[in-house]
Amino acid sequence: MATPTDTERIILGIDPGTNITGYGVIRCVGNRMAIINYGIIDMRKVKDNDHSLKLKRIFERTLGLIEEYLPDEMAIEAPFYGKNVQSMLKLGRAQGVAMAAALYREVPIREYAPKKVKMAITGSGNAGKSQVMAMLEKLLHFKFAEATALDASDGLAVAVCHFLQRDLPQHSPSKKKGNRKSAWGNFIANNPDRLK
Amino acid sequence: MATPTDTERIILGIDPGTNITGYGVIRCVGNRMAIINYGIIDMRKVKDNDHSLKLKRIFERTLGLIEEYLPDEMAIEAPFYGKNVQSMLKLGRAQGVAMAAALYREVPIREYAPKKVKMAITGSGNAGKSQVMAMLEKLLHFKFAEATALDASDGLAVAVCHFLQRDLPQHSPSKKKGNRKSAWGNFIANNPDRLK
Repeated sequence: MATPTDTERIILGIDPGTNITGYGVIRCVGNRMAIINYGIIDMRKVKDNDHSLKLKRIFERTLGLIEEYLPDEMAIEAPFYGKNVQSMLKLGRAQGVAMAAALYREVPIREYAPKKVKMAITGSGNAGKSQVMAMLEKLLHFKFAEATALDASDGLAVAVCHFLQRDLPQHSPSKKKGNRKSAWGNFIANNPDRLK
Repeated sequence: MATPTDTERIILGIDPGTNITGYGVIRCVGNRMAIINYGIIDMRKVKDNDHSLKLKRIFERTLGLIEEYLPDEMAIEAPFYGKNVQSMLKLGRAQGVAMAAALYREVPIREYAPKKVKMAITGSGNAGKSQVMAMLEKLLHFKFAEATALDASDGLAVAVCHFLQRDLPQHSPSKKKGNRKSAWGNFIANNPDRLK
């Protein structure tokens, strides 16, 4: 149970892409978290495949999510390597407009590499998508709906990753300096009841 | 002279970079243009070299320029090739946050590759920076001040490039389909008095 001193925090997780941007919103109180929403911003049918319009949509929808859920923090999945310079430029722009929405509303941003997200949630940086999704369902006590789940899950995953990263030091008395267990490992060790 | 039917247009040119972002603002009436302002957004002394703070500054200052000068269009210098994927990701983010400011204020964006800018202004895609700056001074009847000129000039150059690209078809009765002269070549041919 949350104690009276626990502060509620809303985390918006986002996985920017110029065709599909996934997002997830979670509420955290103490060491507990609950899902508020998840979904995608879909740019696949933007008129004439217009790059500016795609960026505009990412910016406006991200701003809309921020205004609707008033997150305390935004966590962003940010790959640092890509196929080629052109795809990285496009990805950088998609990240940039999503970040601009948060910066504009003074929402602090934290970045996580995809491997870090997988590691935090499953304990393995090489986990497959289905493994990540299954663990998200367990941690958040819900079931992904079919339609947008695959694309939305990375947004939700980075929000959960952020929660696990940040909260554990405060809520894991057993965590020692040099402890190399994954954040998830610690979380599970300290919260065995959360995996029913 | 501008005729009563000529519409005034303000163009904001911007050359985003995560350390220095150059900008220039010009006023265009008919086939004439005048400089309003130019300068840089300087991120070199941002605390702890913090990437988010740099992006925040680019976004906020670009938004500030838009709110101050109310441009009708924004022209952005956008290299499509870079040294490596990481530098392109950073550049993409810088471009993204600058573009977000324009998209947010419904200012249409046009992109120009650096070679295109040089070609439009000097007639050569391989022109050096001093050549571009000298031509900007001639076209706009002003002199660059020393301090920020080198860094600011690309922002001003892309604004002028945008003006030359867009206006010429309306104001150059001699322009024919298949005419491969540079925009600048056409501009000079049709406006010999502008190079005094």
